[in-house]
Amino acid sequence: MSFKGFGSDNQAGVHPEVLAAIAEANVGHAHAYGDDPWTARAIELFREHFGAETDVALTFNGTGANVVSLGAVCRQWESVICAETAHINSDECGAPERVAGVKLVPVATRDGKLTPDLVAPHLAGFGFEHHAQPRVISVSQVTEYGTVYTVAELEALAATAHAHGMLLHVDGARIANAAVSLGLPFRAFITDAGVDMLSFGGTKNGMLAGEAVLLLGEARRECLPYVRKQCGQLSSKMRFVAAQFIAMLEDDLWERCARNANEMATRLAAGAEGIGITVTQAPQANEVFAVLPRPMADQFAEEFHFYVWDESRGEVRWVTSWDTHPQEVDALVGAMRGVLG
Amino acid sequence: MSFKGFGSDNQAGVHPEVLAAIAEANVGHAHAYGDDPWTARAIELFREHFGAETDVALTFNGTGANVVSLGAVCRQWESVICAETAHINSDECGAPERVAGVKLVPVATRDGKLTPDLVAPHLAGFGFEHHAQPRVISVSQVTEYGTVYTVAELEALAATAHAHGMLLHVDGARIANAAVSLGLPFRAFITDAGVDMLSFGGTKNGMLAGEAVLLLGEARRECLPYVRKQCGQLSSKMRFVAAQFIAMLEDDLWERCARNANEMATRLAAGAEGIGITVTQAPQANEVFAVLPRPMADQFAEEFHFYVWDESRGEVRWVTSWDTHPQEVDALVGAMRGVLG
Amino acid sequence: MSFKGFGSDNQAGVHPEVLAAIAEANVGHAHAYGDDPWTARAIELFREHFGAETDVALTFNGTGANVVSLGAVCRQWESVICAETAHINSDECGAPERVAGVKLVPVATRDGKLTPDLVAPHLAGFGFEHHAQPRVISVSQVTEYGTVYTVAELEALAATAHAHGMLLHVDGARIANAAVSLGLPFRAFITDAGVDMLSFGGTKNGMLAGEAVLLLGEARRECLPYVRKQCGQLSSKMRFVAAQFIAMLEDDLWERCARNANEMATRLAAGAEGIGITVTQAPQANEVFAVLPRPMADQFAEEFHFYVWDESRGEVRWVTSWDTHPQEVDALVGAMRGVLG
Amino acid sequence: MSFKGFGSDNQAGVHPEVLAAIAEANVGHAHAYGDDPWTARAIELFREHFGAETDVALTFNGTGANVVSLGAVCRQWESVICAETAHINSDECGAPERVAGVKLVPVATRDGKLTPDLVAPHLAGFGFEHHAQPRVISVSQVTEYGTVYTVAELEALAATAHAHGMLLHVDGARIANAAVSLGLPFRAFITDAGVDMLSFGGTKNGMLAGEAVLLLGEARRECLPYVRKQCGQLSSKMRFVAAQFIAMLEDDLWERCARNANEMATRLAAGAEGIGITVTQAPQANEVFAVLPRPMADQFAEEFHFYVWDESRGEVRWVTSWDTHPQEVDALVGAMRGVLG
Repeated sequence: MSFKGFGSDNQAGVHPEVLAAIAEANVGHAHAYGDDPWTARAIELFREHFGAETDVALTFNGTGANVVSLGAVCRQWESVICAETAHINSDECGAPERVAGVKLVPVATRDGKLTPDLVAPHLAGFGFEHHAQPRVISVSQVTEYGTVYTVAELEALAATAHAHGMLLHVDGARIANAAVSLGLPFRAFITDAGVDMLSFGGTKNGMLAGEAVLLLGEARRECLPYVRKQCGQLSSKMRFVAAQFIAMLEDDLWERCARNANEMATRLAAGAEGIGITVTQAPQANEVFAVLPRPMADQFAEEFHFYVWDESRGEVRWVTSWDTHPQEVDALVGAMRGVLG
Repeated sequence: MSFKGFGSDNQAGVHPEVLAAIAEANVGHAHAYGDDPWTARAIELFREHFGAETDVALTFNGTGANVVSLGAVCRQWESVICAETAHINSDECGAPERVAGVKLVPVATRDGKLTPDLVAPHLAGFGFEHHAQPRVISVSQVTEYGTVYTVAELEALAATAHAHGMLLHVDGARIANAAVSLGLPFRAFITDAGVDMLSFGGTKNGMLAGEAVLLLGEARRECLPYVRKQCGQLSSKMRFVAAQFIAMLEDDLWERCARNANEMATRLAAGAEGIGITVTQAPQANEVFAVLPRPMADQFAEEFHFYVWDESRGEVRWVTSWDTHPQEVDALVGAMRGVLG
Repeated sequence: MSFKGFGSDNQAGVHPEVLAAIAEANVGHAHAYGDDPWTARAIELFREHFGAETDVALTFNGTGANVVSLGAVCRQWESVICAETAHINSDECGAPERVAGVKLVPVATRDGKLTPDLVAPHLAGFGFEHHAQPRVISVSQVTEYGTVYTVAELEALAATAHAHGMLLHVDGARIANAAVSLGLPFRAFITDAGVDMLSFGGTKNGMLAGEAVLLLGEARRECLPYVRKQCGQLSSKMRFVAAQFIAMLEDDLWERCARNANEMATRLAAGAEGIGITVTQAPQANEVFAVLPRPMADQFAEEFHFYVWDESRGEVRWVTSWDTHPQEVDALVGAMRGVLG
Repeated sequence: MSFKGFGSDNQAGVHPEVLAAIAEANVGHAHAYGDDPWTARAIELFREHFGAETDVALTFNGTGANVVSLGAVCRQWESVICAETAHINSDECGAPERVAGVKLVPVATRDGKLTPDLVAPHLAGFGFEHHAQPRVISVSQVTEYGTVYTVAELEALAATAHAHGMLLHVDGARIANAAVSLGLPFRAFITDAGVDMLSFGGTKNGMLAGEAVLLLGEARRECLPYVRKQCGQLSSKMRFVAAQFIAMLEDDLWERCARNANEMATRLAAGAEGIGITVTQAPQANEVFAVLPRPMADQFAEEFHFYVWDESRGEVRWVTSWDTHPQEVDALVGAMRGVLG
C-alpha cells in the first residue's frame, strides 16, 4: 500500500533520524506537558537559531500553531490581514475566526505574496469602533504558490506593520524550504527582518507531527501557555514532539531535508520545461506549478499522485519532499515525454 | 535524565509495540489527512469494538477529543452537565466553552461520579429562552478520582439523558483501565449502555499521542470532519496516529497495558494499607488516593514523582502506568514503611 | 444643540407617530420579553407583509438583527459570502465572526451588489473539511452604495444559493427605501423572490430603536429565541419596540417615511447635477454620491453635516431622511451654487 | 389589555418623566452612535455619581451591559466567579461564555450572596496553564434573592479580588434599589468600596430600555467602544438612551422610583406576615419571597401576575415597581386574607 508521489510534502513519511530520536527519548518517565529535558533542549535550539528573546510553544500541527500565534497577540475585535490564498484563510475551516477569535481580511494577490501596497487600503479604520482593528499582517513563507519572500520584502512588510502599531506573522509551514531557497539562516529573514511571530513548520519537512509557535522580542506574551492549552495544542508526552525538533535543529537535518526537496523541484521544473511544458511559477522552493494538456493532467495526477491546482487551465501542482529521489523526478518527466512525444 | 514514578500515566513513555507500529507505517508516501489504509484499518477496528454504527475521528489529544465530541453535537446556546471535578471543567483552560462553544454546568459530587439524582436539578429551563439548553451529560470513565462507573450507572445516566432529548458523553481518557476494571468489552459498557459519544483515550495507555472521537448510533454527525479540522485536531500524517491505534486494538495490547496499570494500583493500595496508611478511595483502576503524614507526603512526592492532591489533608495521588513494575511499587511501599517504622 | 443635515438617516430623530405609539403602549404592566399583545400584533403585521410562514424576532439594532439572522442558520464551520463593502464585513467590528460564529468571505464589487458571477468562484470546497462550508449569501438592500437590487437580481442570487443548498440573507437596514424605489410590496422582492432571511430595518426609517429578524419559509428555525437572547438582543420591555413597528406597519407610515427620503435624494441629485456637479451613482434610494472640489467638500461637510466618502477623489455621501425638507435640500444646492458660481 | 401585578419590575412601563425626556430629545438631527450632547451629559452625570475616573458605555439591556463589562477586561482563557443563581449564569443563555468569551465558575450560596469564604476554594490554579485563570468576581447587587450586600461585604470581596490581581464586577440591574436600601449614594458602596466594573441598570427602574457599563479607576479600558460595538450594544440614535439616563440621574428620579418600589415591598411583606404568611427573606429591596399554600399560590399567581419561585415548597416571588400603588399591595394582601380566613 505504499507509493511515492508529488501530491504534498504531507504525504511523505518521517525521516529515519527523526524516528530514531523519538525512540531514544522513549526511556522511563518524564514530566508531562513540556516540563522535561527534551523540551528544554528544543527551546534552547530555537533560541540559538532565532535569538535569545524567543518564546516557544510546541504544537501538534500547523493550524494549531497559527491559531495559537494569532490568539496570543490579538483581542477579539482585532483583525489579521492576509493573502486571499493564505492557508489561514482558505484551508483551516474557519479556525482563526473561531478558535483564535480574530477577523480575517483577505487580500487578492498575483502570486500569493502581500506587499505594502496591497496591504495599504486595509490599514484603515484605526480607532473607529465600527471597524475591526487591524492588528496583524500575516504572510506565508513559502507561500501557497511556492514563492519566497526576500528579506527586503519581509522588512518592508514589518516596517508597514510596525508603523501602524501592528505585528508581522509568518506562517512558516515550509520555513526550512524558504531558508534554503534564500541561502540564509532563519534569523536573517525572520528575527532580523522584523518578524514578530512565526509558525515554525516541522511536519512537512520530515517530522512525524510537530510545529512550533515562536514569539519574538516585543511580541512575547505571558499568556502563550494558556492559549496553547485552550486551543488543544498542549501535548502531554511533549518529549516526543521536542525530540523531533532536536533531531531537526541540533545539526543540519532541517537543511538537508529542505535542500533535497528544493533541488528536486528545480530538477522537475527544468525537466518539464525541457520537454516543452509551461512552468507557471519559476520554482523557488519545493513546489512546481505547470500547465499540462488536460487529459494528460488527469491521467498523470492519478499515477504520480499529484493535484490539479486550477481546473480551468489545466494547471497542476507538484510538491517535492525530503525523500524525493532524482529517479522519481526523472520517471515523471520521462512519462510525460512519452506522451508528448 | 530518566526516572520512573507515580505522577501520571502521562509521564510514562510509549509501549515498544506502538513505536514499532509507527516505524512499520513509515514506508513511502501515503495520502494525508486520514485518506490512507492505516486510518481505514483503525476505524475498522473501532467498529469491531464498538459496533458498525460508529463514526470515528482520530485526534491528537484528550482536550481535542472532548471539544470535537461536544462541538459536533452542540449548538452555541446549549449546555453540558458535568462533575465539578471533570477534566473538561477543571483542566482544559476553558476550551469547551471557547472552542466547542458550549456552556458547562458543573455539579458537585462526592467521588467524581454523576448520578441521575445529582443531575436532576439541572434538567430545567427546557424551552426557556433565558436558559442555556441542556444538551449533553458528560462523565469521565475512569473518573478523576479513579472511580469507575458500573454498567447500571451508565445506563441510568443514558436513560436520564435520552428522556430529556439529551446525549451522554464519556470522557474516556482512561477507558481501557475502566474496561479492565469492569472485566467487560468496551461495547458492553459504552455502546450497549446507551452512551452516545466517547473520547477514547490512547496516550495515557501507552501511545505516543492519539485519542479518538467516537460518535455512536444516532449521535453520528456529518459535520464531524469540519469540527475536527476547525478545532486543530486533524493530523496531516495521520497514518502515524492510526498505526498506534492499530497496535493497540488489533490484538490485546490495550488490555495488557491497562491491566498492568490496574494491578499495580491494587498492589500499591494493598501495600500502603498493610503499613497503616489510609487509602481514601478503594482503587478501581490505576489511581490510588491516600493520606500521608504531611512532611512525608512532601518528601516522597519529590522522590517518587507524585502529586499532593489535597494540601489540606495530606492526600496524595499515585498513578500507575502500563510500564510500572512490581519492584517499583514495592520500593515505594518499602520506603514509606521505613519512615513509618 | 439641534441641526438638520445629510450625514446619515441615523442622525434623524423619531417620527412623531412612532413616539405617540410608544406613549400609548405605556399603560400599566405587560408581560416582559415579548409575551405581550403589542409584540403579537407586530408579528401579525410582519406576516401580513411577508406571508404567513414568517418567524419574527424583534431586536434592538441592525448589528443585532444581522448576527441573530446568521447565527440562527449557520454552524460554526460555515461561511457567509458578502460584498467587501457589506455592513457585516466593514462596519460591525467583527461581530458576525465573533457573535454569530461564522466566517465571512468578502467579494469585491463595482457598486456594492453581488451577482451570481461574482459569487461563483467562492462556491467551492463543499464537502472539503479544510474549507469553511459556504452556507449563506448575504446582500444589502439598499446597498452601502445606495444601489437597489431588482427582483430579477435577487431571484438570480436566491437561485444560486438554493442550487448549492445555501440560503439568501438580506441586510435590510434600508429595506423600506428599497420597496419605495422598486414600487413593490415587501413580499414581491423578498419572500416571493426567494429570500430566506431578512434583517428588517426600522431605526433608519424613523423609529427610535428597533429592527426585526425575519426567517422565511424553510429557513425558519426553532432556535431563533435562544440565539436572540444569547446575542443580547432580547428586550425586556419589548412592547415598546413592538409598538414602534405597529406604528410603522399598520398603515403606510413606513412608506411615507421612505418615500420622502427617496424623493429628497432625487431632488438633491437633480439639483447638484443642475449646477454641474458629478453624481457618481444615479440615486436609487436615499443616498447620493457626488464629487465635489476638495476644499468645498470639507467646508460643506462640516456645515451640512455629511461625510466625505472617498478622500482620494473628493467623493461625498449625502443621505436624506424621513424628515428631510425640500428647503433643506435646496439650501445645500444653493450654497454649492454660490461657491461654484 | 393592561394590568398591574407583581411579576417583575420588567413588566412595569416607563416613568412619564423618562418619556418626556425622550420626546424633548426628539429635535432635529444629532450625530449618531453617542457623539451627541445628550450622551455627553449622561456621561457627565455618571461621573458626578461615581467619580471622575469613570468610563461609561451606554447599552440596550442588562445582558448587553454584562457581556460588555466582562468582555472588556477578560481574555478568552480567563474565568469569572459568580453565584450559581447569578443572572449571568442562569438567565443569559450562555451569553457570557459565548459573547464575552469567558468561563463562568458558579458557586452555591445560601442567599444569592458570595463571600470571601465561598470564593476562596476557587482562587486556585493561578499560573497553571490547564486551568482557566480567575480574573473577575461578579456579584449581583441587589441579588436574585432580593438581598443587598453591605458596604463591608463588598469591600471584603473587592479586597479578596484585588489581593489576587482580580477585579470585582457588580451586576447592578437593581442598583438603585440597593442604594435606597443602604441609604447611601452610589459612590459609597461602588467606587469607594473598591468595585471595578458596574452594570448600571435603568430599565427595571422606570426606563424604556437602557443600561450602562461603568469601568472605574484602574479597570478603565481603551477597548470599551470596540467591545460594545462587537457585542451589538451600540445604539445608533443613542441620544434617546442618554436622555433617559439624564432624566433619571439629573435630579432624584432614580431614587424616587426605587424608593417607591422598596417601600411597597416592605408594605407587602409586613402585610403578608400580618396574616400569617411566612416571608422567607426579610425584604431588603423590591422583592419579597414568601411561602403560600399550594393551590393558593397558583390561583393568585395568575390573578396578581407573579411567579412561583420554588415549586417544591410553594415559594412565590413578588416584585414591586416604581409604579406600584399601596392600594395594589393592599388588594393582594386583602385577597390572601380572604382565602386564609
